[in-house]
Amino acid sequence: MKGFGSDNHAGVLPEILEAIAAANVEHAPSYGADPWTARAEARFREHLGPDARAFLVFNGTAANVVGLRALTRPYEAVVCAETAHLNVDECGAPEWNAGIKLLSVATPDGKLTPELVAPQLVRFGDEHAVQPRVISITQSTELGTVYAPAEVAALAGLAHEQGLLLHVDGARLANAAAFLDVPLRALTTDAGVDALSFGATKNGALAGEAVVLLRPGLDAAMPFLRKQSMQLASKMRFIAAQFDALLDGDAWRRPAAHANAMAARLAYAVGALDGVTTTQPVQANAVFAILAPEAGRALRERFYFYTWDERTGEVRWMCSWDTTEAEVDAFAAAIAEAVAHPSGQPR
Amino acid sequence: MKGFGSDNHAGVLPEILEAIAAANVEHAPSYGADPWTARAEARFREHLGPDARAFLVFNGTAANVVGLRALTRPYEAVVCAETAHLNVDECGAPEWNAGIKLLSVATPDGKLTPELVAPQLVRFGDEHAVQPRVISITQSTELGTVYAPAEVAALAGLAHEQGLLLHVDGARLANAAAFLDVPLRALTTDAGVDALSFGATKNGALAGEAVVLLRPGLDAAMPFLRKQSMQLASKMRFIAAQFDALLDGDAWRRPAAHANAMAARLAYAVGALDGVTTTQPVQANAVFAILAPEAGRALRERFYFYTWDERTGEVRWMCSWDTTEAEVDAFAAAIAEAVAHPSGQPR
Amino acid sequence: MKGFGSDNHAGVLPEILEAIAAANVEHAPSYGADPWTARAEARFREHLGPDARAFLVFNGTAANVVGLRALTRPYEAVVCAETAHLNVDECGAPEWNAGIKLLSVATPDGKLTPELVAPQLVRFGDEHAVQPRVISITQSTELGTVYAPAEVAALAGLAHEQGLLLHVDGARLANAAAFLDVPLRALTTDAGVDALSFGATKNGALAGEAVVLLRPGLDAAMPFLRKQSMQLASKMRFIAAQFDALLDGDAWRRPAAHANAMAARLAYAVGALDGVTTTQPVQANAVFAILAPEAGRALRERFYFYTWDERTGEVRWMCSWDTTEAEVDAFAAAIAEAVAHPSGQPR
Amino acid sequence: MKGFGSDNHAGVLPEILEAIAAANVEHAPSYGADPWTARAEARFREHLGPDARAFLVFNGTAANVVGLRALTRPYEAVVCAETAHLNVDECGAPEWNAGIKLLSVATPDGKLTPELVAPQLVRFGDEHAVQPRVISITQSTELGTVYAPAEVAALAGLAHEQGLLLHVDGARLANAAAFLDVPLRALTTDAGVDALSFGATKNGALAGEAVVLLRPGLDAAMPFLRKQSMQLASKMRFIAAQFDALLDGDAWRRPAAHANAMAARLAYAVGALDGVTTTQPVQANAVFAILAPEAGRALRERFYFYTWDERTGEVRWMCSWDTTEAEVDAFAAAIAEAVAHPSGQPR
Repeated sequence: MKGFGSDNHAGVLPEILEAIAAANVEHAPSYGADPWTARAEARFREHLGPDARAFLVFNGTAANVVGLRALTRPYEAVVCAETAHLNVDECGAPEWNAGIKLLSVATPDGKLTPELVAPQLVRFGDEHAVQPRVISITQSTELGTVYAPAEVAALAGLAHEQGLLLHVDGARLANAAAFLDVPLRALTTDAGVDALSFGATKNGALAGEAVVLLRPGLDAAMPFLRKQSMQLASKMRFIAAQFDALLDGDAWRRPAAHANAMAARLAYAVGALDGVTTTQPVQANAVFAILAPEAGRALRERFYFYTWDERTGEVRWMCSWDTTEAEVDAFAAAIAEAVAHPSGQPR
Repeated sequence: MKGFGSDNHAGVLPEILEAIAAANVEHAPSYGADPWTARAEARFREHLGPDARAFLVFNGTAANVVGLRALTRPYEAVVCAETAHLNVDECGAPEWNAGIKLLSVATPDGKLTPELVAPQLVRFGDEHAVQPRVISITQSTELGTVYAPAEVAALAGLAHEQGLLLHVDGARLANAAAFLDVPLRALTTDAGVDALSFGATKNGALAGEAVVLLRPGLDAAMPFLRKQSMQLASKMRFIAAQFDALLDGDAWRRPAAHANAMAARLAYAVGALDGVTTTQPVQANAVFAILAPEAGRALRERFYFYTWDERTGEVRWMCSWDTTEAEVDAFAAAIAEAVAHPSGQPR
Repeated sequence: MKGFGSDNHAGVLPEILEAIAAANVEHAPSYGADPWTARAEARFREHLGPDARAFLVFNGTAANVVGLRALTRPYEAVVCAETAHLNVDECGAPEWNAGIKLLSVATPDGKLTPELVAPQLVRFGDEHAVQPRVISITQSTELGTVYAPAEVAALAGLAHEQGLLLHVDGARLANAAAFLDVPLRALTTDAGVDALSFGATKNGALAGEAVVLLRPGLDAAMPFLRKQSMQLASKMRFIAAQFDALLDGDAWRRPAAHANAMAARLAYAVGALDGVTTTQPVQANAVFAILAPEAGRALRERFYFYTWDERTGEVRWMCSWDTTEAEVDAFAAAIAEAVAHPSGQPR
Repeated sequence: MKGFGSDNHAGVLPEILEAIAAANVEHAPSYGADPWTARAEARFREHLGPDARAFLVFNGTAANVVGLRALTRPYEAVVCAETAHLNVDECGAPEWNAGIKLLSVATPDGKLTPELVAPQLVRFGDEHAVQPRVISITQSTELGTVYAPAEVAALAGLAHEQGLLLHVDGARLANAAAFLDVPLRALTTDAGVDALSFGATKNGALAGEAVVLLRPGLDAAMPFLRKQSMQLASKMRFIAAQFDALLDGDAWRRPAAHANAMAARLAYAVGALDGVTTTQPVQANAVFAILAPEAGRALRERFYFYTWDERTGEVRWMCSWDTTEAEVDAFAAAIAEAVAHPSGQPR
């Protein structure tokens, strides 16, 4: 039974499972010296430009942390939104594995702006303070919002002006690019991004994310950092084959656009309901909404989803590549019923 | 084309790929709260006893390092063989991620013994010295040798007597159990092992290893350590399904036994050749041998394998679950030819 | 020439220098196995109760970080004020050396309260989140304010209720105890504090701070943690002699009370001036005030002190054990002149 | 009562205590922005050349570890002797604080040679292996032996040829320079050394060592690394004053030469005794010798010293700047008596 808990509750896209099966032939050199990995790396260059250097890892935590290890030394700091996955959902992995301090900033919508970041860019040269080195944004954000190319470029401008680098946690980059109907490079290379965590898992892969370094000269240590960070797959071809499939032309766009469309459909359906207030613009594949606690409880008996904020009753409804229109409609109907009859009496 | 480079050059067992495909239905809770993971955990209890607590991770480096994090604090030390993967092939991951120091011991055959370990168990209570806390052995070893149950038990006895724990890097535990024709628990739980890295990848999985804590009370921090160590899979069911298949009865035994048999066949075939000297007992799935450098070079033009020791000309020939008798025979014939006519002239 | 920059700009109390010189006789075992260290440890027990276990280290950063290492594992978190030295002035030492994440909380006056802390004590058992383990307060705070015993006890109550520990960064504990005219234990042991960084340097020592663990069972790993954290002095007697002198009866109280009195005198003198607004209660040895930027500039030509907040013009004036009344009066006169004639024209 | 346990059992040179007292005037900026520190830094340039950049820290563990942090990234490795303090007496501080792996090499006399080091300089570019980056030698060694300038230069040559750096743990550099009667730079800058831990404590300081980076370009991160490593003294002038005194001309030479002379006197006195065999050349201030266990026990009742090797009965007798001829003679007489009458009967 499908719910609206997370896009990682979904399974694997059929074309990705086929690509994995197709890679299961004969022997291949391990640790990435295989043709599938070479092809995946080439795909990244096609999408993100000739300087893109991709290093495949197992999951998103690792893509973020290993990528940041390539950009920082441990006395340097990373500015991020207070809501960033990096800050609140990695069990301290950045601090433990990269040794770095995060400087987090409160935002209304999960998005950093130059104005929000600038006050953190202080105390350069002061040995008592960590030295800001990276601005990290999440695209699309943890709140389902999307940075426009110009917004990314403005942050890149600030970063570079101050000698910093811009990092994108792109666990859902595909959803952002699909929402904006732009190519991947419009939100990354062309907007001045220096390093990217490129997410595949939430967009239909089995397991696999990539650290992509977009600026020459950042990648020299990466092979060692990836291995030392326990993220070098031995049978890499099976990770690579997934990217090979997802980055074959714009194959990545369809599942992401579909998930977005389902969220939009859901938002539209509940938009007119008394008792449901959406709290964030619905741009990517998430709907954030407040409804009465008893309505939430009634609804949760039938569908799985997360409470985002216990105090306000805010919930998160997440759509995925395999969410169907029928499922959205049934869920919307259940929401309507729950807010109308929260105690669950028959109509 | 298949070679003899490594058992991780092989692909995925058909039954494991099928199990992955079979898990690709509907939605499942992420991060391990799914039925496949519950089943895999239960399988570990079936094989290793009711106290076994398994935590699935992505690869062998992680299984070792995260497992050791559960057993140690950073001022404690791990005694291991000089040849241990942990010591020489993890790019410093134990030191970086667990903060621990390894106390390595030279061995003739990759195997620790109480006699070899005892001199390391000194300076307890001396704050200037790291405090030995774990003995870690590799089963089967990096040199293809196997610890008998009594040998494991002797090390467990020493460890426990001194207040230490015994850890097994079981990247190839299946090969050892297959060689000895014993159940998995004979080499682990029943021999007094406290913690295990259980390897699946080299035995035909796509990606997946497990930290298995065998003694009650060692696992409380594991969920956090695994997550912080960047080893918590979001779509865990696809990792778990592999273990579910491999641990279904003794499904793990056939591929391992086959790989061992192919190594034995190879060793037998080259055993009588002038110009080839095997350097280790062939017990698991590796053959170590010395042959003349020019013979090695000639052979390497046709088959992939690793040089183990540049100085002595020692090479490693590795068999895997998918190595065929015909391939072994062809390889053995090529070896015979190479040592007979190393310069490659036609016979 | 003395200024109002910091209490660590002052030198060493004569009685401490004498104690160091008096310790310079014959040979003594190194690393703390000497009579001076035994005596210093006993002094801590006299002041803080029979369970107090003191471990001398070199500086305050270390006292905090090594102390927190004794209380936490790296996936655990420490709740502190946003202004805590730990959070903003240690160049990421807690993150790097202890691997821990700090959960910082904005406060009006540098002081945590149960109400401010409680919202951070969430997500227990959720492996994606760091696990709150310690509440750390600074006494007296970085803003010169002081926690009353009941305020400390309330935080200890919250901590213990939730299974956490209460840590005090007591770099200026003496100033707080002097302000409140209470013994050291009233603010620590008797208030339920579990662990303490006891500062000596700012109160007239040459170099030396102490990690003091107040609850039995927290100290087992400390000898190793201190050594591994590079904080074990070889000629420990010279660190210990300083504590021996400072903790001889209430010898610590006079220099701290004097520094406090000088701050109070300064605050009183400037309190009536137009153009100077004190921004925090003056309780310990610091005066925080806002004055016009040009007044600040004029004043800084003659006296050394720090700007606390560039945007508001807030400054910090710090008194120390060796600040004299005459110096305070001269400084107050200069302030009066600067705010009256900020451009520096002769009266 | 003085013994022969360690040179850090001795106290502080009178001229150093005077320098500390002389620095105790007025206020001085903290954290090294004071005239004493400037002067100490200048002294290092006088002795070690204009490119020498000195960073004062508290102790020798820190000098080594913080220095190595400046030279390495965590996937890099440091080659050192098996007996190196770094390897056996820092409680894992290099692994924990710098994250690096040590590659240790057995030596007969505590001294590395190019021949001993070369086999460790392998696997460059192999992501599975830590990458050798630094050769670290101890001067004088933990076994009391001394590297001649040409021996240091040979190691520097090897290091630079292979793209590595040469680090000297100079906790007793003064003893080596005194033994060889050369200036400090003959053993460091002029011999191609890149980075140095310069020891003061064992040569009569109260507390204080220095990281000295001798090659331009290595020091940019040092202020941050020192602070983050908890080694930035607030009242730095009192650390600096010690170096200012010790490096005033060749003030460092006299105490070191004296300690050496006392060791030579002791070695000479026991050299002819039956029952005492010195096991290392006596070059610096240590005498290593084997004597019968019962003789050692008898002797230890009257004098403090360390057993070096329980199995062989090897002991270490250490002389310090304050060891007197009379004390050496009395000790030598006691040794003579102990080996003649180990059971302690009166003659």
